[in-house]
Amino acid sequence: MILLFTDYGAADIYSGQLRAALCALAPGSEIVDLLHTAPNYNIKASAHLLAALVPQFQIASTCLAIVDPGVGSQRDAVVILADRKWYVGPDNGLLSVVAARASKVELWRITWRPENLSRSFHGRDLFAPIAALIEKGAFPYDKLAAMARLGLVLDAGDLAEIIYIDHYGNAMTGLRAGVLQHGDKLLLGSVELSYAPVFSQAQSMQPFWYENCIGLIEIALDRGDAAALLDIKVGNLLRRSL
Amino acid sequence: MILLFTDYGAADIYSGQLRAALCALAPGSEIVDLLHTAPNYNIKASAHLLAALVPQFQIASTCLAIVDPGVGSQRDAVVILADRKWYVGPDNGLLSVVAARASKVELWRITWRPENLSRSFHGRDLFAPIAALIEKGAFPYDKLAAMARLGLVLDAGDLAEIIYIDHYGNAMTGLRAGVLQHGDKLLLGSVELSYAPVFSQAQSMQPFWYENCIGLIEIALDRGDAAALLDIKVGNLLRRSL
Amino acid sequence: MILLFTDYGAADIYSGQLRAALCALAPGSEIVDLLHTAPNYNIKASAHLLAALVPQFQIASTCLAIVDPGVGSQRDAVVILADRKWYVGPDNGLLSVVAARASKVELWRITWRPENLSRSFHGRDLFAPIAALIEKGAFPYDKLAAMARLGLVLDAGDLAEIIYIDHYGNAMTGLRAGVLQHGDKLLLGSVELSYAPVFSQAQSMQPFWYENCIGLIEIALDRGDAAALLDIKVGNLLRRSL
Repeated sequence: MILLFTDYGAADIYSGQLRAALCALAPGSEIVDLLHTAPNYNIKASAHLLAALVPQFQIASTCLAIVDPGVGSQRDAVVILADRKWYVGPDNGLLSVVAARASKVELWRITWRPENLSRSFHGRDLFAPIAALIEKGAFPYDKLAAMARLGLVLDAGDLAEIIYIDHYGNAMTGLRAGVLQHGDKLLLGSVELSYAPVFSQAQSMQPFWYENCIGLIEIALDRGDAAALLDIKVGNLLRRSL
Repeated sequence: MILLFTDYGAADIYSGQLRAALCALAPGSEIVDLLHTAPNYNIKASAHLLAALVPQFQIASTCLAIVDPGVGSQRDAVVILADRKWYVGPDNGLLSVVAARASKVELWRITWRPENLSRSFHGRDLFAPIAALIEKGAFPYDKLAAMARLGLVLDAGDLAEIIYIDHYGNAMTGLRAGVLQHGDKLLLGSVELSYAPVFSQAQSMQPFWYENCIGLIEIALDRGDAAALLDIKVGNLLRRSL
Repeated sequence: MILLFTDYGAADIYSGQLRAALCALAPGSEIVDLLHTAPNYNIKASAHLLAALVPQFQIASTCLAIVDPGVGSQRDAVVILADRKWYVGPDNGLLSVVAARASKVELWRITWRPENLSRSFHGRDLFAPIAALIEKGAFPYDKLAAMARLGLVLDAGDLAEIIYIDHYGNAMTGLRAGVLQHGDKLLLGSVELSYAPVFSQAQSMQPFWYENCIGLIEIALDRGDAAALLDIKVGNLLRRSL
């Protein structure tokens, strides 16, 4: 299974070209659009979202992870094997949180460059061909060089920031659920949020925090839009209430 | 063929996880994203849209239908066989219009619960595994109990309300086309709408009603946005002009 | 591989029905949502976007291309074989740029009409069945009649207009990259844009033009939204600076 995680947009001309390239090179593969609306250009938020989202799947997979504002610059392209899952993407920090949290990691730099490499779409031209080979079981030793560590490494600890807002208006944080007790309050600016286990047990019209479906602390509002109500943006900071 | 009908959002982290779960459990199945933008939390509108959309397909299918604001509460999870099509989803009224309009229906409550059931994403954890088994032809008798009737049943008659607005600005109603004659006017607030058979025969700049591609009465504007022009929202009421 | 190129919307009820129809008629085919957000009803912009997007793929494919505001009117439905790629869609100009730029073209009018042809969704009812037959290698000679030329032909030269704006705010033009030298300035209204080879080499906060991933000249802003900054809309005109 090939998982796609990008900021290419769910409705744009990029994800389809990526998929067409994969279909041509690894026909018959299952390809899943996991997310194409990672926050635009936002490597830090995307790295934390990726680390919560992809490792949860029990099955073998190759993840194409691309949030790549520096495409066409000198940043490297890498392949990571982290806890038996493959990741292909830019060496700009995006894969560093997944790598740091894995118990076992192997790293390769992609040394190969295709003949017709566009300057702005390495997803289609460079990362997809490598991912297709890995997914087909034809590991491209001749196109890679083992490396000891990533070029750019982000802090892999819990991130006390909003990293993603979904279409309901639920606001995900980079905090894993274990960092708060159910009695703890979460502070977003001057707003204090209490815990509720599920939407249907939250107080009406009252935003709350809970553990979401990928193990992150999330701010929500039962049948409402928490992000609109509280004017939440990706990057907003969080604290624990004293 | 597995059909997905949800309010999970077309661009969000939910539909991809649903698909990944299905790919893992029923590899090789055709999976179609029929709609992920059912009106958020709106069970009634979604029930009428689902009943117009899914039964039209002639081929065998298993429909995962999930608009589930009460996830994590005491509502049941159900499987329905309605006119030889399978539906899996919450017992909150969403499937009741399909069921009431079918000539033959069988019902089961899902008694099984997976070990790692999240509180907020039964689509991925509970409904998808059941749908995968059905689609593979391994009907999960041990995970279901036959039931006589649904727990929550909505009125299955025509619904004189706006139930969906598409990206062109066309506004679908819950009225099946047979309820109006071509000479009838449709009233939306104080606006009176006449019939046109197709967009290209409508008067320029003049909103009209017609029978849409799934047999519902729809308000439209040739090469324009009827919903923006008339400020139409899901839930707006309709009447027949006298 | 079946490529879908439409203005049906990426989040709407149309692309899923199209896909379900194709899955039923050509099970096992690879189907790729190339773009469902071609500018609504905009045949000219879509024709130029299609001509840049689809011919780049090296593999065999059947492209369902549908931007069809005149559906239900007297416009013909056609099949085109252009440089060994198949296209199925309305004869309203949409396919005429692809056809004019190909070195070898064959044309057929679709004479067949299905029993249950809706008035507004020929994609699902008419074009998809024809595309499915072609993709399966069962060319439908009995449903087609060879034709000498398309009914409606647009200018196939470079188009000095904005034809598409992506979710980053990059604005694509209908100009192929070869028409400008790197020293040339592009004029959008009174704004003069210089060339940069890649985003990371553009001046900060300074919109620029570059050759995008499908060979078109595009206006962009490094880690920013050029369309919002410059208030760019589809249809805006461009000139070369003297």
